[in-house]
Amino acid sequence: MIFRLIGYLLVIESVFLFLAFLVSLIYNEGDQFTFFVSFLFTFFIGASAVFFTRNAKKEFGKREGYIIVSSIWVVFSIFGSLPFVLSDSIPSFTDAFFETMSGFTTTGASILNNIEELSHAILFWRSITQWMGGMGIIVLSLAILPFLGVGGVQLFSAESPGLTIDRMRPRIKETAQRLWIIYVGFTMLETILLWIGGMNVFDAICHSFTTMATGGYSTKQASIAYFSSPFIQYVIIAFMFIAGVNFTLSYFALKLDFKKILKNEEFRMYAFITIIAALVIAVRLFIGGNIPLEQAFRDALFQVVSIITTTGYITVDYLLWSHFLIALIFSLMFIGGSSGSTGGGVKVIRVLLIIKNCYFELKRLIHPKAIIPMRLNGKTVPQTLMNNVLAFIVFYLLIFMIGSLIMSGLGLDMESAMGAVATTLGNIGPGIGSVGPVENFSHIPTVGKWFLSAFMLLGRLELFTVLIVFAPAFWKK
Amino acid sequence: MIFRLIGYLLVIESVFLFLAFLVSLIYNEGDQFTFFVSFLFTFFIGASAVFFTRNAKKEFGKREGYIIVSSIWVVFSIFGSLPFVLSDSIPSFTDAFFETMSGFTTTGASILNNIEELSHAILFWRSITQWMGGMGIIVLSLAILPFLGVGGVQLFSAESPGLTIDRMRPRIKETAQRLWIIYVGFTMLETILLWIGGMNVFDAICHSFTTMATGGYSTKQASIAYFSSPFIQYVIIAFMFIAGVNFTLSYFALKLDFKKILKNEEFRMYAFITIIAALVIAVRLFIGGNIPLEQAFRDALFQVVSIITTTGYITVDYLLWSHFLIALIFSLMFIGGSSGSTGGGVKVIRVLLIIKNCYFELKRLIHPKAIIPMRLNGKTVPQTLMNNVLAFIVFYLLIFMIGSLIMSGLGLDMESAMGAVATTLGNIGPGIGSVGPVENFSHIPTVGKWFLSAFMLLGRLELFTVLIVFAPAFWKK
Repeated sequence: MIFRLIGYLLVIESVFLFLAFLVSLIYNEGDQFTFFVSFLFTFFIGASAVFFTRNAKKEFGKREGYIIVSSIWVVFSIFGSLPFVLSDSIPSFTDAFFETMSGFTTTGASILNNIEELSHAILFWRSITQWMGGMGIIVLSLAILPFLGVGGVQLFSAESPGLTIDRMRPRIKETAQRLWIIYVGFTMLETILLWIGGMNVFDAICHSFTTMATGGYSTKQASIAYFSSPFIQYVIIAFMFIAGVNFTLSYFALKLDFKKILKNEEFRMYAFITIIAALVIAVRLFIGGNIPLEQAFRDALFQVVSIITTTGYITVDYLLWSHFLIALIFSLMFIGGSSGSTGGGVKVIRVLLIIKNCYFELKRLIHPKAIIPMRLNGKTVPQTLMNNVLAFIVFYLLIFMIGSLIMSGLGLDMESAMGAVATTLGNIGPGIGSVGPVENFSHIPTVGKWFLSAFMLLGRLELFTVLIVFAPAFWKK
Repeated sequence: MIFRLIGYLLVIESVFLFLAFLVSLIYNEGDQFTFFVSFLFTFFIGASAVFFTRNAKKEFGKREGYIIVSSIWVVFSIFGSLPFVLSDSIPSFTDAFFETMSGFTTTGASILNNIEELSHAILFWRSITQWMGGMGIIVLSLAILPFLGVGGVQLFSAESPGLTIDRMRPRIKETAQRLWIIYVGFTMLETILLWIGGMNVFDAICHSFTTMATGGYSTKQASIAYFSSPFIQYVIIAFMFIAGVNFTLSYFALKLDFKKILKNEEFRMYAFITIIAALVIAVRLFIGGNIPLEQAFRDALFQVVSIITTTGYITVDYLLWSHFLIALIFSLMFIGGSSGSTGGGVKVIRVLLIIKNCYFELKRLIHPKAIIPMRLNGKTVPQTLMNNVLAFIVFYLLIFMIGSLIMSGLGLDMESAMGAVATTLGNIGPGIGSVGPVENFSHIPTVGKWFLSAFMLLGRLELFTVLIVFAPAFWKK
């Protein structure tokens, strides 16, 4: 059953490869054959897997759910790196896998030194991997494959272990479809707005894909700095911000139910952090340099939204800012988007819960015998959930620490090592040090690229789904 | 009652100032008057506080316990900085307060640029502040003041919120006395061994004070690097290691009950981390440089033990090592000594518990309905304790993060900012960047010194005792 499902999903991936093949036909840049072969090979492998397992039983449990979700992201990245390798645009398989995993996990960390020399089809494929990964491979398949009804819940919760997903479970297929409709709608809207702002259609589509996925791949080496138009930059800021909001809230927004949004504690904290951080940076930039106030504000807001939503677009090299602002940007890397958004990282809701919990722990020390329930959005937070959140944070920081040690063991200086791990684990893209916004990951040693690919996957699946597969207890009985 | 108790404690401090006065008489270096005035003033203030509050009620509760413990460390540091200011060896009060707080909290971070030009009495006072702070001001007073029997438990648990203290509570005074006997015993033993190794008596006493307190103040600018004798360095390694072990275990060791020690999970992890880290560094140093194997091993072991026990002595500038080794040393700063030792930091037991908890959280995800109890040393760890530990870690890292932001806002580069906060919060001494082992804290801006002093206190009292006093809920009702 595991092979059968992976087969089905590969067929879906081959459909997207076919789209890229169509793009290669339009632009006729010599890589039509590459994409046709990639499509055919992926389709063939997927279809055979489905065919040879047609007698498999239809049901699967929790355990299979974890295995499928963890492995599908790796399988997708392997097949997804075919066009890069076959077209010789990224000759090394390690690099191609890193680039594709960075795409599917919506990280946006790149090993490419000259993005603009790539063909349109390759650029399109880079962007669409992020768009597929943004909403989640499983959510995509749930919306398309009707037979997934039963085990789908397992897959859904393994892929999106966000904290608000539970109440959407009853009608899993409808939920997945609704999410995709909103996702597609926003992507189309942004494409139109970017086109109005002066981007060509191709760039507008690619950037809309990677904005809504909070991915951050651009078709330009200079990222969004290439498009100096303030209108384009504000449009992208707006859609990055939207992509970092829980999609359930966006659904309420479309129903014009703004009260529900403003009452949501996670949204309030997300907006609060964004505004405060942007203001602090804007004021500092305005005082420090000789740039106009509007530009200081735009640069500040763009970088803050880009980092907190884990998109990773760049309009300015923040490593040229003061120590304090760099440290502030680096801190934002540990927050991430909202739960139920396409943003990665720790997620605002977890940050909110642990800060609340800190205060409640003080209260408990003052009144040790009183039972003081903690509330979020008016509901009591169960202790088991709180334990899970705390364990997540500790896990996250442990992996960050061990990862930084590994990277510095491979020769990176401490800032670069911490930057590389923070940005891949948080699915952001640019880091600090030698993996800063105007740098890339091509200079990282091969072993390091594999580790960073693993951190991207860990971050995207929120640690537990991947780690659980490696726990001895998982395989017992 | 609060004032009365603080008065009593000031009288105790004045006794130690009197000891320093005796030292100044012996060496006759012109600061006898300074110490006499400091002693007299402290004694007078303390005695008056006791006298004028003689009608206060004898009992106090939890709340008063927290207030007394938090404030006594500040009061001690204010009076303790008198000799520095009056003798003009540290003219600025900010610097003198920083130096004294760094002493009492056993941090060992210094603002002095030329330690060797100080008088013997000042050096002695620096060392003895650490020795007093090492075992805890309250533990000291509990051993001496018999009337503290009732409220003493509150004070004891507020000052030493370590996790193994509970079972020692029934006979609080006996416990405190026993701890002090072991403490004094080890200090004397180390003094003798250092003297045999070739140190003069004065240096041997001062270094024994600061070793057993895991403080790290030296009488030499070059710290232990000044004493090149391997014997002296190994003696100091051994006593730093002992000081980082739970004193209850040392008590068992003196009763030759080694089985209990080897079975203790915290001790095993403490020894394990120390040995592994030392071996990794030793091998790397031996391969990398042209130093003999014995010296590579000694340098590695010395720095590892010095950092993990939060002592902060130096025999070699570890910032000259490779990126990986620096990152490793920096990671050790987040572990700290054992619970119930004089070491600061997060403490090994908490690190052990959160790592265990991570694994158990995975188990819980695999079997969501099963109740899987977590064990430590054969006993079940209650969930409330685990919550407290997790909240502590999160608090610790939040303060580290906010602190690093503040310090970088004051102009420090990121590594120095993180190093300064990690080393003060962990009560270690040397950091990384511009506050590295051969540097000091004199260049930190005044505001920064006050923040770092606050972090030292927060770290020494394990966060909650200080933070709780600032919680609005604490002052209600």
